[in-house]
Amino acid sequence: MTRFFVTTEELATDSPILTGENARHAKVLRLKNGEAVLLCDGQGQECVCTVTDATADSFVLAVQERRASQTEAAVQVSIYMAFPKADKLEHVIQKATELGAYEIVAFPSGRCVSKPDDKSLKKKLERWQKIAASASEQCGRGRIPEVIVLGSFTEALKRAATADKALMFYENEQAVTLRMALQTGAYKTVSLLTGPEGGLEEREVEMARNAGLQVCTLGKRILRCETAPLCALSAVMYDAGEF
Amino acid sequence: MTRFFVTTEELATDSPILTGENARHAKVLRLKNGEAVLLCDGQGQECVCTVTDATADSFVLAVQERRASQTEAAVQVSIYMAFPKADKLEHVIQKATELGAYEIVAFPSGRCVSKPDDKSLKKKLERWQKIAASASEQCGRGRIPEVIVLGSFTEALKRAATADKALMFYENEQAVTLRMALQTGAYKTVSLLTGPEGGLEEREVEMARNAGLQVCTLGKRILRCETAPLCALSAVMYDAGEF
Repeated sequence: MTRFFVTTEELATDSPILTGENARHAKVLRLKNGEAVLLCDGQGQECVCTVTDATADSFVLAVQERRASQTEAAVQVSIYMAFPKADKLEHVIQKATELGAYEIVAFPSGRCVSKPDDKSLKKKLERWQKIAASASEQCGRGRIPEVIVLGSFTEALKRAATADKALMFYENEQAVTLRMALQTGAYKTVSLLTGPEGGLEEREVEMARNAGLQVCTLGKRILRCETAPLCALSAVMYDAGEF
Repeated sequence: MTRFFVTTEELATDSPILTGENARHAKVLRLKNGEAVLLCDGQGQECVCTVTDATADSFVLAVQERRASQTEAAVQVSIYMAFPKADKLEHVIQKATELGAYEIVAFPSGRCVSKPDDKSLKKKLERWQKIAASASEQCGRGRIPEVIVLGSFTEALKRAATADKALMFYENEQAVTLRMALQTGAYKTVSLLTGPEGGLEEREVEMARNAGLQVCTLGKRILRCETAPLCALSAVMYDAGEF
Protein backbone atom coordinates (compact mmCIF):
# COMPACT_ATOMS: atom_id res chain seq x y z
CA MET A 1 0.00 0.00 0.00
CA THR A 2 1.53 3.34 -1.04
CA ARG A 3 2.01 5.78 1.82
CA PHE A 4 1.52 9.54 1.74
CA PHE A 5 2.34 12.02 4.50
CA VAL A 6 -0.33 14.69 5.06
CA THR A 7 -1.02 17.20 7.84
CA THR A 8 -3.01 16.22 10.92
CA GLU A 9 -5.81 18.49 9.68
CA GLU A 10 -5.90 16.79 6.30
CA LEU A 11 -5.95 13.38 7.96
CA ALA A 12 -8.97 14.40 10.05
CA THR A 13 -11.30 15.07 7.07
CA ASP A 14 -13.68 12.40 5.75
CA SER A 15 -12.64 12.93 2.14
CA PRO A 16 -8.95 13.74 2.17
CA ILE A 17 -7.54 15.02 -1.12
CA LEU A 18 -4.01 14.39 -2.37
CA THR A 19 -2.63 17.63 -3.78
CA GLY A 20 0.73 19.14 -4.74
CA GLU A 21 3.73 16.83 -4.35
CA ASN A 22 1.51 13.95 -3.19
CA ALA A 23 -0.74 14.29 -6.26
CA ARG A 24 2.31 14.33 -8.55
CA HIS A 25 3.56 11.16 -6.86
CA ALA A 26 0.11 9.52 -7.15
CA LYS A 27 0.02 10.46 -10.82
CA VAL A 28 3.41 8.84 -11.45
CA LEU A 29 2.09 5.70 -9.75
CA ARG A 30 -1.08 5.91 -11.92
CA LEU A 31 -3.37 5.39 -8.95
CA LYS A 32 -6.89 4.47 -10.08
CA ASN A 33 -10.34 4.67 -8.47
CA GLY A 34 -10.81 1.89 -5.91
CA GLU A 35 -7.11 1.48 -5.10
CA ALA A 36 -6.07 1.56 -1.43
CA VAL A 37 -3.49 4.00 -0.05
CA LEU A 38 -2.20 4.78 3.43
CA LEU A 39 -2.25 8.36 4.74
CA CYS A 40 0.05 9.20 7.66
CA ASP A 41 0.23 12.42 9.63
CA GLY A 42 3.84 11.82 10.65
CA GLN A 43 2.71 11.93 14.29
CA GLY A 44 1.83 8.27 14.65
CA GLN A 45 -1.75 8.34 13.30
CA GLU A 46 -2.72 6.84 9.97
CA CYS A 47 -5.71 6.16 7.74
CA VAL A 48 -6.39 3.45 5.19
CA CYS A 49 -8.20 5.14 2.27
CA THR A 50 -9.45 4.28 -1.21
CA VAL A 51 -9.27 6.52 -4.23
CA THR A 52 -12.77 7.70 -5.20
CA ASP A 53 -12.03 10.40 -7.75
CA ALA A 54 -8.75 10.37 -9.65
CA THR A 55 -8.44 13.38 -11.97
CA ALA A 56 -5.46 14.95 -13.73
CA ASP A 57 -4.51 17.18 -10.77
CA SER A 58 -5.93 15.70 -7.62
CA PHE A 59 -6.99 12.47 -5.99
CA VAL A 60 -10.05 12.43 -3.74
CA LEU A 61 -10.02 9.65 -1.15
CA ALA A 62 -12.56 7.97 1.12
CA VAL A 63 -11.52 6.93 4.63
CA GLN A 64 -11.81 3.19 5.34
CA GLU A 65 -10.03 2.84 8.67
CA ARG A 66 -8.37 5.14 11.18
CA ARG A 67 -5.68 3.61 13.37
CA ALA A 68 -2.41 4.14 15.21
CA SER A 69 0.67 3.56 13.09
CA GLN A 70 1.63 -0.13 12.92
CA THR A 71 5.34 0.45 12.48
CA GLU A 72 6.26 2.54 15.52
CA ALA A 73 8.33 1.05 18.33
CA ALA A 74 6.62 0.61 21.69
CA VAL A 75 9.69 2.03 23.42
CA GLN A 76 10.52 5.74 22.95
CA VAL A 77 14.26 6.12 22.41
CA SER A 78 15.74 9.62 22.22
CA ILE A 79 19.18 10.02 20.65
CA TYR A 80 21.26 12.76 22.28
CA MET A 81 24.30 13.47 20.15
CA ALA A 82 26.99 16.09 20.70
CA PHE A 83 27.44 18.00 17.40
CA PRO A 84 29.69 15.96 15.13
CA LYS A 85 30.89 17.17 11.74
CA ALA A 86 27.87 17.92 9.55
CA ASP A 87 27.70 14.85 7.32
CA LYS A 88 27.90 12.56 10.35
CA LEU A 89 24.89 14.15 12.00
CA GLU A 90 22.95 13.70 8.76
CA HIS A 91 24.02 10.06 8.66
CA VAL A 92 22.85 9.51 12.23
CA ILE A 93 19.49 11.24 11.61
CA GLN A 94 18.82 9.01 8.61
CA LYS A 95 19.87 5.75 10.27
CA ALA A 96 18.35 6.48 13.69
CA THR A 97 15.04 7.21 11.95
CA GLU A 98 15.17 3.82 10.21
CA LEU A 99 16.04 2.12 13.47
CA GLY A 100 12.97 3.65 15.10
CA ALA A 101 14.32 6.53 17.24
CA TYR A 102 11.63 8.77 18.74
CA GLU A 103 13.65 11.97 18.35
CA ILE A 104 17.20 13.12 17.65
CA VAL A 105 18.62 15.84 19.87
CA ALA A 106 21.89 17.62 19.02
CA PHE A 107 23.79 19.77 21.51
CA PRO A 108 27.23 21.34 22.02
CA SER A 109 29.93 19.83 24.24
CA GLY A 110 33.50 20.79 25.13
CA ARG A 111 35.32 18.93 22.37
CA CYS A 112 32.86 19.58 19.52
CA VAL A 113 34.85 20.77 16.52
CA SER A 114 31.70 21.65 14.64
CA LYS A 115 28.73 23.66 15.82
CA PRO A 116 26.29 25.47 13.56
CA ASP A 117 26.09 29.21 14.21
CA ASP A 118 22.71 30.76 15.01
CA LYS A 119 22.51 32.26 11.53
CA SER A 120 22.74 28.97 9.64
CA LEU A 121 20.88 26.92 12.23
CA LYS A 122 17.37 27.50 10.93
CA LYS A 123 18.28 26.35 7.43
CA LYS A 124 20.18 23.35 8.78
CA LEU A 125 17.32 22.28 11.02
CA GLU A 126 15.00 22.38 8.02
CA ARG A 127 17.44 20.19 6.11
CA TRP A 128 17.81 17.74 9.02
CA GLN A 129 14.04 17.53 9.46
CA LYS A 130 13.70 16.74 5.75
CA ILE A 131 16.22 13.91 6.08
CA ALA A 132 14.16 12.46 8.95
CA ALA A 133 10.94 12.80 6.89
CA SER A 134 12.42 11.14 3.86
CA ALA A 135 13.94 8.28 5.92
CA SER A 136 10.55 7.80 7.65
CA GLU A 137 8.86 7.48 4.30
CA GLN A 138 11.45 5.04 2.99
CA CYS A 139 11.35 2.70 5.98
CA GLY A 140 7.57 2.81 6.39
CA ARG A 141 7.29 4.75 9.65
CA GLY A 142 4.07 6.50 10.57
CA ARG A 143 5.84 9.08 12.71
CA ILE A 144 8.61 11.45 11.69
CA PRO A 145 11.12 11.84 14.52
CA GLU A 146 11.69 15.45 15.50
CA VAL A 147 15.21 16.83 15.19
CA ILE A 148 15.89 19.16 18.11
CA VAL A 149 18.85 21.44 18.74
CA LEU A 150 19.68 22.51 22.29
CA GLY A 151 21.87 25.44 23.26
CA SER A 152 23.97 23.87 26.01
CA PHE A 153 25.33 20.63 27.39
CA THR A 154 23.58 21.29 30.71
CA GLU A 155 20.25 21.64 28.95
CA ALA A 156 20.84 18.32 27.17
CA LEU A 157 21.57 16.56 30.47
CA LYS A 158 18.49 18.00 32.12
CA ARG A 159 16.24 16.94 29.25
CA ALA A 160 17.85 13.49 28.84
CA ALA A 161 17.57 12.76 32.56
CA THR A 162 13.76 12.69 32.44
CA ALA A 163 13.69 9.27 30.67
CA ASP A 164 13.12 5.98 32.50
CA LYS A 165 16.64 5.00 31.42
CA ALA A 166 18.94 7.96 30.95
CA LEU A 167 22.26 6.62 29.69
CA MET A 168 25.55 8.18 28.65
CA PHE A 169 28.22 6.18 26.82
CA TYR A 170 31.84 6.79 27.71
CA GLU A 171 34.87 4.92 26.41
CA ASN A 172 36.62 4.98 29.80
CA GLU A 173 33.73 3.30 31.58
CA GLN A 174 34.39 -0.42 31.86
CA ALA A 175 32.31 -1.79 34.70
CA VAL A 176 28.72 -0.89 33.80
CA THR A 177 27.45 -2.40 30.56
CA LEU A 178 24.37 -1.31 28.62
CA ARG A 179 22.83 -4.65 29.56
CA MET A 180 23.25 -3.96 33.29
CA ALA A 181 21.68 -0.54 32.86
CA LEU A 182 18.69 -1.88 30.92
CA GLN A 183 18.03 -4.96 32.97
CA THR A 184 17.45 -3.20 36.26
CA GLY A 185 13.76 -2.36 35.99
CA ALA A 186 11.25 -1.86 33.17
CA TYR A 187 11.38 1.12 30.82
CA LYS A 188 9.22 2.89 28.28
CA THR A 189 11.47 5.86 27.53
CA VAL A 190 15.23 5.82 27.00
CA SER A 191 17.81 8.58 26.43
CA LEU A 192 21.09 7.60 24.79
CA LEU A 193 23.74 10.31 25.05
CA THR A 194 27.05 10.13 23.15
CA GLY A 195 30.00 12.47 22.63
CA PRO A 196 31.57 14.16 19.58
CA GLU A 197 34.64 13.05 17.56
CA GLY A 198 37.07 13.84 20.37
CA GLY A 199 34.94 12.18 23.05
CA LEU A 200 33.43 13.61 26.21
CA GLU A 201 35.52 15.41 28.79
CA GLU A 202 35.91 13.84 32.23
CA ARG A 203 34.19 16.79 33.86
CA GLU A 204 31.26 16.39 31.45
CA VAL A 205 30.92 12.75 32.50
CA GLU A 206 30.83 13.90 36.12
CA MET A 207 28.19 16.50 35.28
CA ALA A 208 26.12 13.77 33.64
CA ARG A 209 26.36 11.52 36.71
CA ASN A 210 25.31 14.41 38.90
CA ALA A 211 22.36 15.10 36.59
CA GLY A 212 21.19 11.52 37.08
CA LEU A 213 22.48 9.81 33.95
CA GLN A 214 24.00 6.36 34.17
CA VAL A 215 27.40 6.03 32.50
CA CYS A 216 27.86 2.80 30.48
CA THR A 217 30.23 1.09 28.10
CA LEU A 218 29.46 -0.16 24.59
CA GLY A 219 32.27 -2.72 24.76
CA LYS A 220 36.01 -2.99 24.37
CA ARG A 221 36.36 -1.28 21.01
CA ILE A 222 36.34 2.50 20.57
CA LEU A 223 33.35 3.31 18.38
CA ARG A 224 33.32 6.35 16.11
CA CYS A 225 30.97 9.10 17.23
CA GLU A 226 28.48 8.26 14.46
CA THR A 227 28.59 4.51 15.16
CA ALA A 228 28.01 4.60 18.92
CA PRO A 229 24.43 5.99 18.97
CA LEU A 230 23.28 3.58 16.22
CA CYS A 231 24.88 0.59 17.93
CA ALA A 232 23.25 1.53 21.24
CA LEU A 233 19.88 2.20 19.57
CA SER A 234 19.94 -1.20 17.81
CA ALA A 235 20.74 -2.94 21.09
CA VAL A 236 17.98 -1.10 23.00
CA MET A 237 15.40 -1.97 20.33
CA TYR A 238 16.54 -5.59 20.53
CA ASP A 239 16.39 -5.57 24.33
CA ALA A 240 12.91 -4.01 24.23
CA GLY A 241 11.67 -6.91 22.09
CA GLU A 242 11.31 -5.06 18.78
CA PHE A 243 12.99 -7.87 16.81
CA MET B 1 49.65 2.91 24.38
CA THR B 2 50.22 3.45 20.66
CA ARG B 3 49.44 0.43 18.49
CA PHE B 4 51.33 -0.75 15.42
CA PHE B 5 50.36 -3.56 13.07
CA VAL B 6 53.25 -5.83 12.05
CA THR B 7 53.45 -9.25 10.38
CA THR B 8 53.17 -12.45 12.41
CA GLU B 9 56.87 -13.08 11.69
CA GLU B 10 57.88 -9.63 12.96
CA LEU B 11 55.79 -10.15 16.09
CA ALA B 12 57.61 -13.45 16.78
CA THR B 13 61.10 -11.93 17.08
CA ASP B 14 62.57 -10.92 20.46
CA SER B 15 63.63 -7.50 19.23
CA PRO B 16 61.00 -6.31 16.76
CA ILE B 17 61.95 -3.25 14.73
CA LEU B 18 59.51 -0.61 13.52
CA THR B 19 60.35 0.25 9.92
CA GLY B 20 58.73 1.93 6.92
CA GLU B 21 55.29 3.40 7.55
CA ASN B 22 55.36 2.34 11.21
CA ALA B 23 58.72 4.08 11.74
CA ARG B 24 57.39 7.23 10.10
CA HIS B 25 54.38 7.14 12.40
CA ALA B 26 56.60 6.53 15.46
CA LYS B 27 58.76 9.47 14.42
CA VAL B 28 55.75 11.78 14.17
CA LEU B 29 54.77 10.68 17.67
CA ARG B 30 58.37 11.32 18.83
CA LEU B 31 58.60 7.95 20.60
CA LYS B 32 61.53 7.86 23.00
CA ASN B 33 63.58 5.08 24.59
CA GLY B 34 61.67 3.44 27.44
CA GLU B 35 58.22 4.24 26.09
CA ALA B 36 55.69 1.40 25.79
CA VAL B 37 53.96 0.48 22.51
CA LEU B 38 51.61 -2.31 21.48
CA LEU B 39 52.44 -4.49 18.48
CA CYS B 40 49.56 -6.42 16.87
CA ASP B 41 49.75 -9.00 14.11
CA GLY B 42 46.17 -8.34 12.99
CA GLN B 43 45.40 -12.00 13.70
CA GLY B 44 44.50 -11.61 17.35
CA GLN B 45 47.98 -11.82 18.90
CA GLU B 46 49.73 -8.85 20.42
CA CYS B 47 52.87 -7.84 22.28
CA VAL B 48 53.56 -5.08 24.79
CA CYS B 49 57.04 -3.68 23.96
CA THR B 50 59.30 -0.86 25.06
CA VAL B 51 61.47 1.24 22.77
CA THR B 52 65.15 0.40 23.32
CA ASP B 53 66.83 2.17 20.41
CA ALA B 54 65.10 5.10 18.73
CA THR B 55 67.11 6.41 15.78
CA ALA B 56 66.19 8.66 12.86
CA ASP B 57 64.92 5.79 10.67
CA SER B 58 64.00 2.88 12.88
CA PHE B 59 62.80 1.97 16.35
CA VAL B 60 64.16 -1.17 18.01
CA LEU B 61 61.84 -2.65 20.62
CA ALA B 62 62.12 -5.14 23.47
CA VAL B 63 59.24 -7.54 24.14
CA GLN B 64 57.68 -7.21 27.60
CA GLU B 65 54.56 -9.35 27.33
CA ARG B 66 52.97 -11.58 24.70
CA ARG B 67 49.21 -12.06 24.90
CA ALA B 68 45.98 -12.58 23.03
CA SER B 69 44.31 -9.37 21.91
CA GLN B 70 42.17 -7.84 24.66
CA THR B 71 39.67 -6.18 22.36
CA GLU B 72 38.30 -9.07 20.29
CA ALA B 73 34.76 -10.30 20.80
CA ALA B 74 34.32 -13.79 22.24
CA VAL B 75 31.64 -14.52 19.64
CA GLN B 76 32.66 -14.81 15.96
CA VAL B 77 30.13 -12.99 13.80
CA SER B 78 30.42 -13.22 10.02
CA ILE B 79 28.61 -10.60 7.93
CA TYR B 80 27.27 -11.99 4.64
CA MET B 81 26.18 -9.14 2.43
CA ALA B 82 24.83 -9.30 -1.13
CA PHE B 83 26.81 -6.78 -3.23
CA PRO B 84 25.31 -3.33 -2.66
CA LYS B 85 26.48 -0.24 -4.54
CA ALA B 86 30.19 0.29 -3.90
CA ASP B 87 30.19 3.04 -1.28
CA LYS B 88 27.68 1.12 0.85
CA LEU B 89 29.89 -1.97 1.00
CA GLU B 90 32.77 0.25 2.10
CA HIS B 91 30.55 1.77 4.76
CA VAL B 92 29.55 -1.66 6.06
CA ILE B 93 33.17 -2.91 6.09
CA GLN B 94 34.25 0.08 8.16
CA LYS B 95 31.37 -0.05 10.63
CA ALA B 96 31.21 -3.85 10.96
CA THR B 97 34.92 -3.82 11.78
CA GLU B 98 34.34 -1.30 14.56
CA LEU B 99 31.42 -3.33 15.86
CA GLY B 100 33.66 -6.41 16.10
CA ALA B 101 32.71 -8.55 13.08
CA TYR B 102 34.98 -11.55 12.50
CA GLU B 103 34.84 -11.31 8.70
CA ILE B 104 32.82 -9.63 5.96
CA VAL B 105 31.72 -11.79 3.04
CA ALA B 106 30.24 -10.26 -0.13
CA PHE B 107 28.42 -12.31 -2.74
CA PRO B 108 26.07 -11.84 -5.73
CA SER B 109 22.29 -12.30 -5.55
CA GLY B 110 19.45 -11.95 -8.05
CA ARG B 111 18.59 -8.29 -7.47
CA CYS B 112 22.15 -6.96 -7.07
CA VAL B 113 22.48 -3.88 -9.25
CA SER B 114 26.20 -3.70 -8.65
CA LYS B 115 28.76 -6.48 -8.89
CA PRO B 116 32.48 -5.96 -9.47
CA ASP B 117 33.80 -7.65 -12.62
CA ASP B 118 36.67 -10.10 -12.29
CA LYS B 119 39.09 -7.57 -13.74
CA SER B 120 38.51 -4.89 -11.12
CA LEU B 121 37.94 -7.31 -8.26
CA LYS B 122 41.56 -7.73 -7.16
CA LYS B 123 42.06 -3.98 -6.82
CA LYS B 124 38.73 -3.56 -5.03
CA LEU B 125 39.49 -6.35 -2.57
CA GLU B 126 42.78 -4.66 -1.74
CA ARG B 127 40.91 -1.42 -1.12
CA TRP B 128 38.28 -3.12 1.04
CA GLN B 129 40.94 -4.94 3.06
CA LYS B 130 42.68 -1.60 3.66
CA ILE B 131 39.43 -0.10 4.95
CA ALA B 132 39.12 -3.01 7.39
CA ALA B 133 42.74 -2.57 8.50
CA SER B 134 42.37 1.14 9.03
CA ALA B 135 39.10 0.73 10.95
CA SER B 136 40.73 -1.98 13.11
CA GLU B 137 43.55 0.38 13.97
CA GLN B 138 41.18 3.23 14.77
CA CYS B 139 38.92 1.24 17.08
CA GLY B 140 41.72 -0.65 18.82
CA ARG B 141 41.17 -4.15 17.47
CA GLY B 142 43.95 -6.71 17.53
CA ARG B 143 42.54 -8.61 14.58
CA ILE B 144 41.77 -7.30 11.11
CA PRO B 145 38.58 -8.91 9.76
CA GLU B 146 39.10 -10.56 6.41
CA VAL B 147 37.01 -9.29 3.48
CA ILE B 148 36.01 -12.24 1.33
CA VAL B 149 34.26 -12.27 -2.06
CA LEU B 150 32.34 -15.36 -3.14
CA GLY B 151 31.31 -16.18 -6.68
CA SER B 152 27.74 -17.32 -6.12
CA PHE B 153 24.73 -17.10 -3.84
CA THR B 154 24.78 -20.88 -3.35
CA GLU B 155 28.39 -20.73 -2.20
CA ALA B 156 27.45 -18.00 0.30
CA LEU B 157 24.61 -20.12 1.72
CA LYS B 158 26.83 -23.18 2.05
CA ARG B 159 29.55 -21.25 3.86
CA ALA B 160 27.12 -19.29 6.07
CA ALA B 161 25.28 -22.45 7.11
CA THR B 162 28.34 -23.81 8.97
CA ALA B 163 27.87 -21.32 11.86
CA ASP B 164 26.16 -22.24 15.16
CA LYS B 165 23.51 -19.63 14.27
CA ALA B 166 23.08 -19.16 10.53
CA LEU B 167 20.54 -16.37 10.04
CA MET B 168 19.06 -14.61 7.05
CA PHE B 169 17.06 -11.39 7.40
CA TYR B 170 14.02 -10.93 5.19
CA GLU B 171 11.52 -8.07 5.29
CA ASN B 172 8.55 -10.38 4.62
CA GLU B 173 9.32 -12.61 7.59
CA GLN B 174 7.21 -11.54 10.57
CA ALA B 175 6.97 -14.47 12.94
CA VAL B 176 10.57 -15.33 13.81
CA THR B 177 12.52 -12.57 15.53
CA LEU B 178 16.30 -12.38 15.90
CA ARG B 179 15.75 -12.87 19.62
CA MET B 180 13.92 -16.17 19.08
CA ALA B 181 16.70 -17.38 16.80
CA LEU B 182 19.45 -16.47 19.27
CA GLN B 183 17.79 -17.67 22.43
CA THR B 184 17.36 -21.28 21.38
CA GLY B 185 20.73 -22.73 22.38
CA ALA B 186 24.24 -21.37 22.96
CA TYR B 187 26.42 -20.09 20.14
CA LYS B 188 30.03 -19.20 19.44
CA THR B 189 29.77 -18.50 15.73
CA VAL B 190 27.05 -16.55 13.91
CA SER B 191 26.39 -15.81 10.23
CA LEU B 192 24.19 -12.81 9.41
CA LEU B 193 23.04 -12.77 5.80
CA THR B 194 21.29 -9.76 4.25
CA GLY B 195 20.13 -8.79 0.74
CA PRO B 196 20.99 -5.98 -1.69
CA GLU B 197 19.13 -2.68 -2.32
CA GLY B 198 16.18 -4.44 -3.97
CA GLY B 199 15.92 -7.15 -1.32
CA LEU B 200 16.16 -10.92 -1.63
CA GLU B 201 13.99 -12.86 -4.04
CA GLU B 202 11.45 -15.27 -2.63
CA ARG B 203 13.16 -18.22 -4.27
CA GLU B 204 16.46 -17.13 -2.68
CA VAL B 205 14.79 -17.15 0.73
CA GLU B 206 13.60 -20.70 0.01
CA MET B 207 17.09 -21.72 -1.06
CA ALA B 208 18.43 -20.32 2.21
CA ARG B 209 15.91 -22.28 4.26
CA ASN B 210 16.83 -25.43 2.39
CA ALA B 211 20.51 -24.76 3.02
CA GLY B 212 19.80 -24.64 6.76
CA LEU B 213 19.59 -20.92 7.43
CA GLN B 214 16.94 -19.55 9.73
CA VAL B 215 14.93 -16.66 8.30
CA CYS B 216 14.27 -13.81 10.78
CA THR B 217 12.87 -10.31 10.98
CA LEU B 218 14.66 -7.17 12.19
CA GLY B 219 11.38 -5.52 13.11
CA LYS B 220 8.51 -3.62 11.55
CA ARG B 221 10.50 -1.04 9.66
CA ILE B 222 12.20 -1.72 6.33
CA LEU B 223 15.93 -1.19 6.89
CA ARG B 224 18.22 -0.08 4.08
CA CYS B 225 20.61 -2.75 2.88
CA GLU B 226 23.57 -1.06 4.61
CA THR B 227 21.67 -0.57 7.89
CA ALA B 228 20.37 -4.13 8.35
CA PRO B 229 23.71 -5.94 8.85
CA LEU B 230 24.98 -3.32 11.30
CA CYS B 231 21.75 -3.35 13.28
CA ALA B 232 21.82 -7.16 13.47
CA LEU B 233 25.53 -7.20 14.38
CA SER B 234 24.98 -4.68 17.21
CA ALA B 235 22.11 -6.76 18.56
CA VAL B 236 24.08 -10.03 18.41
CA MET B 237 27.05 -8.45 20.21
CA TYR B 238 24.64 -7.18 22.86
CA ASP B 239 22.96 -10.58 23.16
CA ALA B 240 26.36 -12.28 23.45
CA GLY B 241 27.22 -10.09 26.45
CA GLU B 242 29.79 -7.84 24.78
CA PHE B 243 28.32 -4.67 26.28
